[in-house]
Amino acid sequence: MKIPKAVQNLVESFEKLPGVGQKTAQRLTFYLLHVPQSELDSFARAIGSLKNNTLVCSVCLNIGEKDPCDICSDTQRNKDTICVVEQPLDVLALEKNGKYQGVYHVLHGKIDPLNNIGPDEIYIGKLLDRIRDSKNSHTISEVIIATNPTMEGEATAMYITKQIKSQIPASPAGRLSLKSQIKITRIGRGLPVGSDIEYADEVTLQRAMEGRQDY
Amino acid sequence: MKIPKAVQNLVESFEKLPGVGQKTAQRLTFYLLHVPQSELDSFARAIGSLKNNTLVCSVCLNIGEKDPCDICSDTQRNKDTICVVEQPLDVLALEKNGKYQGVYHVLHGKIDPLNNIGPDEIYIGKLLDRIRDSKNSHTISEVIIATNPTMEGEATAMYITKQIKSQIPASPAGRLSLKSQIKITRIGRGLPVGSDIEYADEVTLQRAMEGRQDY
Repeated sequence: MKIPKAVQNLVESFEKLPGVGQKTAQRLTFYLLHVPQSELDSFARAIGSLKNNTLVCSVCLNIGEKDPCDICSDTQRNKDTICVVEQPLDVLALEKNGKYQGVYHVLHGKIDPLNNIGPDEIYIGKLLDRIRDSKNSHTISEVIIATNPTMEGEATAMYITKQIKSQIPASPAGRLSLKSQIKITRIGRGLPVGSDIEYADEVTLQRAMEGRQDY
Repeated sequence: MKIPKAVQNLVESFEKLPGVGQKTAQRLTFYLLHVPQSELDSFARAIGSLKNNTLVCSVCLNIGEKDPCDICSDTQRNKDTICVVEQPLDVLALEKNGKYQGVYHVLHGKIDPLNNIGPDEIYIGKLLDRIRDSKNSHTISEVIIATNPTMEGEATAMYITKQIKSQIPASPAGRLSLKSQIKITRIGRGLPVGSDIEYADEVTLQRAMEGRQDY
């Protein structure tokens, strides 16, 4: 196979991306050969400077431009509701409709024993610290656990719930007063809008029945 | 939507790639946030230097590191057979099994009137020049037209065939001598290996019947 070194290098770089195989990597690389050099340069600059110009928010661990991030430093946001998500992309998805007015906590992963990721590998401890720290000032009233409705996401949600319930009363204040009680909720699971009951899988249908609401 | 500028820039760069939508671009970008800076730098370098270290072969128009390219300058190759393909990637695909011993001609496109690409926008003229130039020395005996078996690819193949047939005898030498007659062939179309007659479409089956061979 006689592929120029420069082409081969870029094919190999593309192949490292998730969901990009050899064929796709080659297709992308040969496409870029037809692109003006100025556009290649700006692409290269965007990749090189990606991490220099972003940082992780020390409060919610989301990716942002400053610390604390735009959402955490927004005074219009309800700081008493924390939505726990797996990835920064989940924040983007939830922010799209602009309805949620609380703040976030990004775990940067999920408990996934098959891939050797335990509770200590993701930012669950930071979430517990954040809840514990704010307990005395009663600032947090609800934790919405919005991990993915997958096996690992559900396990992570269950673990977090258990940890919050067990650790919060164990704090120096002793028994939780009614006021400092934190509501823990799980994001609703059921039929996605626009879907078809006929084609829904059994578990989704069961969840949808369990999650039925007064009409 | 509160996306850091650096992230947004890279998402936009990824979105320009063929087959990459907004969701995929975001997924790739957020994936790269977890990658070490050294790897990002080498990715950026690979993109920036892609075109600096490659050039188009003046003989076959394939992408290579030198001019003429490795294939054209290979003395082991039969220069009397030219395989005409649409894209450099097609050369890669044909070279994979190492069976073809001739040389190539890359059109860098196909006749595609719906996208305003006519015969003059792709390198058909260069192919005709190449055939005409070599006619007196009788070096080219066969032109294999290996454009894709799509509507546009077939139209391109038909156009090239017509052009070769009409232009070659019109050269100063007058009528073609038997020796300088150039065989024009089209790459075989039929059932791909491993496929199922049951699931083949009608046109493919028709082509397969037309292209049947003695056993």
